[in-house]
Amino acid sequence: MVINSLDNKKIKKYASLKTNKGRIEHGLFLVEGMHLVEEAFKHNLLVDILLLEGDSLSFETNLEITYVTESILKKVSNLINYSNVIGICKTFNNKEIIGDKILLLDNIQDPGNLGTIIRSACAFNIDTIVLSNDTVDLYNDKVIRSTQGMLFHMNIVSHNLMDLIPKLKENGYMILGTNVHNGTLVSDVNPSKYALIMGNEGHGVKEEISVMCDKNLYIKMNKNCESLNVGVATSILLYELNKRSL
Amino acid sequence: MVINSLDNKKIKKYASLKTNKGRIEHGLFLVEGMHLVEEAFKHNLLVDILLLEGDSLSFETNLEITYVTESILKKVSNLINYSNVIGICKTFNNKEIIGDKILLLDNIQDPGNLGTIIRSACAFNIDTIVLSNDTVDLYNDKVIRSTQGMLFHMNIVSHNLMDLIPKLKENGYMILGTNVHNGTLVSDVNPSKYALIMGNEGHGVKEEISVMCDKNLYIKMNKNCESLNVGVATSILLYELNKRSL
Repeated sequence: MVINSLDNKKIKKYASLKTNKGRIEHGLFLVEGMHLVEEAFKHNLLVDILLLEGDSLSFETNLEITYVTESILKKVSNLINYSNVIGICKTFNNKEIIGDKILLLDNIQDPGNLGTIIRSACAFNIDTIVLSNDTVDLYNDKVIRSTQGMLFHMNIVSHNLMDLIPKLKENGYMILGTNVHNGTLVSDVNPSKYALIMGNEGHGVKEEISVMCDKNLYIKMNKNCESLNVGVATSILLYELNKRSL
Repeated sequence: MVINSLDNKKIKKYASLKTNKGRIEHGLFLVEGMHLVEEAFKHNLLVDILLLEGDSLSFETNLEITYVTESILKKVSNLINYSNVIGICKTFNNKEIIGDKILLLDNIQDPGNLGTIIRSACAFNIDTIVLSNDTVDLYNDKVIRSTQGMLFHMNIVSHNLMDLIPKLKENGYMILGTNVHNGTLVSDVNPSKYALIMGNEGHGVKEEISVMCDKNLYIKMNKNCESLNVGVATSILLYELNKRSL
C-alpha cells in the first residue's frame, strides 16, 4: 500500500500516538529506526510499518508495508531527524510478575532515566520491572530511545505498589529500599529473591512505601557528594546484586 | 539596582549566554535556582545575580543584586518554569591536572550524560575530569542541571586527548579503556594512579585513542544485553575503582 496524503485517516491515527492520550485510546505506540522496528517485529508486537517510498527493510517480514512520503514520516515522527521507517506496535498488556528479581519504580519522572534503568535492568538480569501508576509513560518516545531496544527484552508491568508489596512479601520476596544514612552496604547483601524499590528523582520513594522495606541499601561514596542520578544509583545496586549470582 | 527593560544592554548580554557562542564571547555562563547560585557564590565564580523584585536570597553575599521583572527572568532563563534567581558566573579557566585519579571524556555528546558523569565522578573521588575538545559544552544548561551542583566540586579542564595521554603515561598514570570482549574485569584491578577514558555514546572511544590504553576493563553483565548507557557504565567503573580505596 502507498499513502501520499497527510489527511489519510490511518496517518492521523498514527500521528496521535505521539501523545499519551492517543496511545491509551488505540493501545498502540511508535518505534523509530530499523533496529527498533526489527526488535518489535521479532517480539510479535509490530502491527504496521511505515517505510519511505523507494526504501527497503533490512529484515524479512510477512507484514504488509505501508509506503509513505517524507512529509508523512515527518508528521508521525517525534524526531527532527526522522527515520525512514516507523513501526506501529501493540502496547504490552501483561500483568504477571515473573522471576525472583524484581525492580519496582515509584514515580520515576524523567523519560531518559526510565529508559536507562530498563537497559541496565536487562544487563543485570532483572526478571520483571513494575512501574507505579504515576511513573512516566513507558511508551514515551524518549523512554523507548533510551532503552536502546532493551524494552523488548524485559517483562514490564504496571501496578499499584501499595497493594503489590504486601503480596510480594507473602511470596517470599525481600523488599529492598535505599537509605544513605541508615542502610546496609549493598555489597554486604546477597538476597536470592528480592524486590528493589527506587523512587522519584526529587523526592525518593514515598514514605508510605518506604516503611514497608525489609532492608535499606546504600552505595559507598564520598561523604561530601552523597548524590547520584537515580538511573546510576539503580544501575549500581543492580550491578552489585547481580555480581555475586553470575 | 533594578532593571525593568528587556532592551537593557546587560540583560541582552546575559540572554546571549544561553548560546555556546555567547558564553565563549563573554567568558560567562548561567546557573538557575537558589541552590546552584549559592554554590557558585561559595566557589567564587559568581559575578552578578538576577533576582525577582520583592524576593530575597537564602544566603548572605557582598555582591550587589540586580532586581528584575518576571519577563526579564523569562528572557534570560533556559527553562519554561524559570526560577526567581539566575546567577551569572565566570567560566573556569583552569588547565592544570591534579590528583592521581583522572577521567578522560572523548566526545561525549549528550548533556544529561555529561552532567550525570560529573556527579558520579564527584561521588567516587575522581580528582580531575578532562574533556576532549569535541565533547558537549560544559556550560550548556542541561549539563549544569544534571550535575546537581557537583560541577563546582570538581576540577574540570579541556585538552587535546591525543597530546595529553602520552604525557600522563610519562607521569605514571595507567591508561584504562573499556572493551567488553577482550578486557579485564573491573573488580580485578586496583590501580593507584590512573586515567580512565570513556567515549562517545554511539561510537565509543576513537580508535587512535583506544590503542594508547594500557589495559581495557569490562563490567560483568548478561551476555544478551551487553549495552549500558555511557553515564551508567562510567559510574559503575568509577564505583568499582573507588570501592577498594576507601
